[in-house]
Amino acid sequence: MSLLVTGSLGIDTVETPAGKVENVMGGSGVYFAFAASFFTPVRLVGVVGEDCPDEFLYILKENPNIDTSGIEVRKGAKTFRWHGKYHDDLNQRDTIAVDLNVLAESGPNIPEKFRDSQFVFLANTHPELQLGLLSQLNSSTAAPHSSKLIVADTMDLWTSTQREKLMTLLERLDGLVLNDAEARLLTEESNLVFAGKQIAQHVQRFVIIKKGEHGSLLFVDDEVFPIPAWPAVDIIDPTGAGDSFAGAMMGYLAQTENLDTDNLKKAAAYGTVTASFTLEDFSLNRLRQITREQIDERMKRFEQILQI
Amino acid sequence: MSLLVTGSLGIDTVETPAGKVENVMGGSGVYFAFAASFFTPVRLVGVVGEDCPDEFLYILKENPNIDTSGIEVRKGAKTFRWHGKYHDDLNQRDTIAVDLNVLAESGPNIPEKFRDSQFVFLANTHPELQLGLLSQLNSSTAAPHSSKLIVADTMDLWTSTQREKLMTLLERLDGLVLNDAEARLLTEESNLVFAGKQIAQHVQRFVIIKKGEHGSLLFVDDEVFPIPAWPAVDIIDPTGAGDSFAGAMMGYLAQTENLDTDNLKKAAAYGTVTASFTLEDFSLNRLRQITREQIDERMKRFEQILQI
Repeated sequence: MSLLVTGSLGIDTVETPAGKVENVMGGSGVYFAFAASFFTPVRLVGVVGEDCPDEFLYILKENPNIDTSGIEVRKGAKTFRWHGKYHDDLNQRDTIAVDLNVLAESGPNIPEKFRDSQFVFLANTHPELQLGLLSQLNSSTAAPHSSKLIVADTMDLWTSTQREKLMTLLERLDGLVLNDAEARLLTEESNLVFAGKQIAQHVQRFVIIKKGEHGSLLFVDDEVFPIPAWPAVDIIDPTGAGDSFAGAMMGYLAQTENLDTDNLKKAAAYGTVTASFTLEDFSLNRLRQITREQIDERMKRFEQILQI
Repeated sequence: MSLLVTGSLGIDTVETPAGKVENVMGGSGVYFAFAASFFTPVRLVGVVGEDCPDEFLYILKENPNIDTSGIEVRKGAKTFRWHGKYHDDLNQRDTIAVDLNVLAESGPNIPEKFRDSQFVFLANTHPELQLGLLSQLNSSTAAPHSSKLIVADTMDLWTSTQREKLMTLLERLDGLVLNDAEARLLTEESNLVFAGKQIAQHVQRFVIIKKGEHGSLLFVDDEVFPIPAWPAVDIIDPTGAGDSFAGAMMGYLAQTENLDTDNLKKAAAYGTVTASFTLEDFSLNRLRQITREQIDERMKRFEQILQI
């Protein structure tokens, strides 16, 4: 089933205790699309500038499950750039430099042919812009929109500065993915279980709180399902793990077209396992190497280790 | 099967966002013994002073599964006291006052009739003292001791100041239980999975890293099993949760007399579930109310929510 993602395509420079890479492919939309592509065809919508290396677009285009026709190369604009440095404790990182560039301009246009997408993911950006993207989707008279599942990600900046807009967005979503610090900020609750339950009251179906090395919590129908992280030892670069999680989760849901609670849990577990590969190398390197079979193999092992 | 625990019996004053209790029963040995008593008979060894309220000893004695004949009421001594205050974020607490009192004197004597215990837990205290307690157990010529499973807890103070003694202790243990900060201190590794694997090389069977609200990690045979926390909303007082975890885990192992990997996982899950009750009220209040049936019921639910 068709999966649409709107998100960033960026040029990253990343430093971790394992090394440094400069001007590599990154961005939430890119990590999401690659992770989702193991499960279902993905329609990637985003904007880059004229400086975007041809190689990046080539890497996306050579993936048969990623439709890149929604990527706009904007004349006179520059691509989003991010430079981050992780501490020895990989749970912490500093942003050394960030150039929003084209992300500070008007948002992307969702191509007409993508507007019927049944599964939609709005990667993190200004909630106003996310609402604008939502309004581009086909609407039906029966519902505010005709999509089957609309999920968004957000970030701490919006939970603190754009709270009202974010709450408006929440009411139009089926699902929200956010991290632990964001959930605490949004609800002013330190207990994550309580925080997640509160947020879940505003969206239609589910909330996921991502906790990095501690896994995630899935909230659905007033129930809470903790999903531990894959116990990874060799972490090279945590960049994009959260977007990979969301991509694989949404990809699996779009593939199976099943939104019941058990399948949501399974989708979140696929998200966990797929993200665990992302950590094993810089940029998209590991995701570009692996196969669906390798994901399924690790998924099977994950089910075993969780079984009590 | 007989389970011996050596640990503290204390008089606690505890402040949490939910309220304050003064001079209530506490101590690692007490929480451990109560949690273990749902599964197996427990032999509790520790020392209190003459000021220990009769009521505390009565509460212990009225539990048919706790043998209190190893509790020494030392003449002229005072009972260990602790006063702690939790932040709004219950993962953080300050020690307002601590009076070691009798804990600063010579350690307890393990009664002759307890020295054949097959399952032994040395709750946190100076590693030198833990080694002394170990040497009181019956030894056989075939092994350094004739017990089936010897497990200890430790704390950050010893990982930093008594590293060498602690390492000597580790080599004589079947299992070690410690928290995330202690594991990082001991190994100087920020990745907990890596840290746990390193520590596991020093003990005979398993290591558990407790992560509070994020659950725990079980390391056995070079494998890692993440066990999430029970998703608790109404937390009144986190005091004793870690000791309850260890008590229920050891109690279940002593009851089943099965040390294979699957049973270790199940024991850790029982620890998780039993500890989740401890959090629901101050001091031992909740553990004194519940039944094994309630633990089993929550355990069943826990297995369901973890099943993918």
